Amino acid sequence: MDQKVIDGRAHAAGNLKVISQDVEVLKEQGWNPQLISVMVGDVQEAALYVRNQKRIAEQAGIAFREKRLPESITEAEMQAAIAGLNADPSVSGIILQRPMPAHLNVKALQKAVHPLKDVEGMHPESIGNIVYKEMELGPCTAMAAVEILKSTGLKLEGLEVVVIGHSEIVGKPIAFLLLAEGATVTVCHHMTHNVAVHTRRADVVFVAVGKAGLVTGDMLKPGAAVIDIGINQVVDAQGNSKVVGDADFESCSQVAGWITPVPGGVGPVTVSVLMRNAVTATQRQKAHYESEYSHRFVPAGMSPVGL
Amino acid sequence: MDQKVIDGRAHAAGNLKVISQDVEVLKEQGWNPQLISVMVGDVQEAALYVRNQKRIAEQAGIAFREKRLPESITEAEMQAAIAGLNADPSVSGIILQRPMPAHLNVKALQKAVHPLKDVEGMHPESIGNIVYKEMELGPCTAMAAVEILKSTGLKLEGLEVVVIGHSEIVGKPIAFLLLAEGATVTVCHHMTHNVAVHTRRADVVFVAVGKAGLVTGDMLKPGAAVIDIGINQVVDAQGNSKVVGDADFESCSQVAGWITPVPGGVGPVTVSVLMRNAVTATQRQKAHYESEYSHRFVPAGMSPVGL
Repeated sequence: MDQKVIDGRAHAAGNLKVISQDVEVLKEQGWNPQLISVMVGDVQEAALYVRNQKRIAEQAGIAFREKRLPESITEAEMQAAIAGLNADPSVSGIILQRPMPAHLNVKALQKAVHPLKDVEGMHPESIGNIVYKEMELGPCTAMAAVEILKSTGLKLEGLEVVVIGHSEIVGKPIAFLLLAEGATVTVCHHMTHNVAVHTRRADVVFVAVGKAGLVTGDMLKPGAAVIDIGINQVVDAQGNSKVVGDADFESCSQVAGWITPVPGGVGPVTVSVLMRNAVTATQRQKAHYESEYSHRFVPAGMSPVGL
Repeated sequence: MDQKVIDGRAHAAGNLKVISQDVEVLKEQGWNPQLISVMVGDVQEAALYVRNQKRIAEQAGIAFREKRLPESITEAEMQAAIAGLNADPSVSGIILQRPMPAHLNVKALQKAVHPLKDVEGMHPESIGNIVYKEMELGPCTAMAAVEILKSTGLKLEGLEVVVIGHSEIVGKPIAFLLLAEGATVTVCHHMTHNVAVHTRRADVVFVAVGKAGLVTGDMLKPGAAVIDIGINQVVDAQGNSKVVGDADFESCSQVAGWITPVPGGVGPVTVSVLMRNAVTATQRQKAHYESEYSHRFVPAGMSPVGL
């Protein structure tokens, strides 16, 4: 593979080696990480992700259980189901698979997941902790994208970075993660008057919009790094369906110094970050348990969830 | 006063009128907002702020109680004190006055304040909620600065904004608040190679660094808005001590379309936002209480704090 094309699969494999070792240590200490995938209705695209997560979890030695709930489930029943998983000591982390039926409030459900079991890093408290530079556990895709940038060896301090896309779980967390590392960060989105004005002066461009061909080579500064988070199903000239990112790979790869392919770039690293979050969550539950039982009296304010 | 100079005191007075009415409504419903100011040691600069907060609270009809703790207090004792205030039904909001002695972990203490009593908007969950665009309650200074920008009537969608300073409680929250409104946001800081390159193309410059004279007129695009959050004590040519912001007022006011003075700009609005947060916190505690007592059974996941 071309040197400038970043191999996400190899990076993920390296992560999983370390994660498996951490899982072994936890098991020796009596803690068995287990992920629960909660899927509502019969969603084809989610099923593919779930199979993949299950396969990688098993590689890492993490148990993976699937919970399927009927499409007709109410919000209150979902809340009760999540409360049950929060209270289940065998569950280390809860994954709410998207998309969810429109009648459910996904944000409210994410908030119902206990912060110590929030392996997707989407609870407001998890997001807030990232703002406060506690960056061990965060939204998987954002963490993966930043980790890939770091793997280039570029020095992040003072680096000019442009993030296209301002979603709560990808664009914004990428911005805080990079600010914490000393980068100068501009966040653009669909309301930005002229995205190219920004990308042309950037050392690094992250793109997470979900629009094939959004970033083209002429929008880049020569030698820039392009981290492509988009996943788009398109039909090529021969009528074959294929998956591409948000960057036009052909033109961008001619100008960029580094570029992530889609598939095989950010995606596999994201799944490995989910597994690392599972380990981190289990370690935190262990620490919480130990602090609860190693003192006779713990003032309420000292619990790790801040209550 | 020059039309381009934004009058923060007048803006704050307008806010307080609305807040007082909200306080009246709460009182009629049996809820009496009360702020507790927690000060550790004898800190001269904090004492000034506290007096000011107390005066404004009383104007708004909000009770204000001062708690002074000895400089020798330990972290565990502070945690216990906060736990006590969390559990005290007469306390609607807790203010941890800074600076705190170096042996105390201010971040951990802020996290110990219950999210429903976090009137300073500094709990990670409060910060995370802002990222998720729940913007009723947030860090007072950031909220005040953005509110002042809105008062200019500038349309935020697509506006090019540069924020200088990336602190957790000012610079970063300003960035998310503006992103939520559709602005294109760049965050610069002490590691940014060339701040002027960014500010010269900006429609709005926020500066929150704490360095007098950091932004000068030649760094601005003509007609830009300057929102100055710095507070610096300096000695003028006549040897008199005075308070100035981070922007050089003389040169900036000649180029800018709008500028906030220091003092009399963001400061008074910040205190009014603290009072509004006290009202919001009390309203949330009321809603929480009502939801607890209006059902026979509430699943754990449905409580407003997400636990």
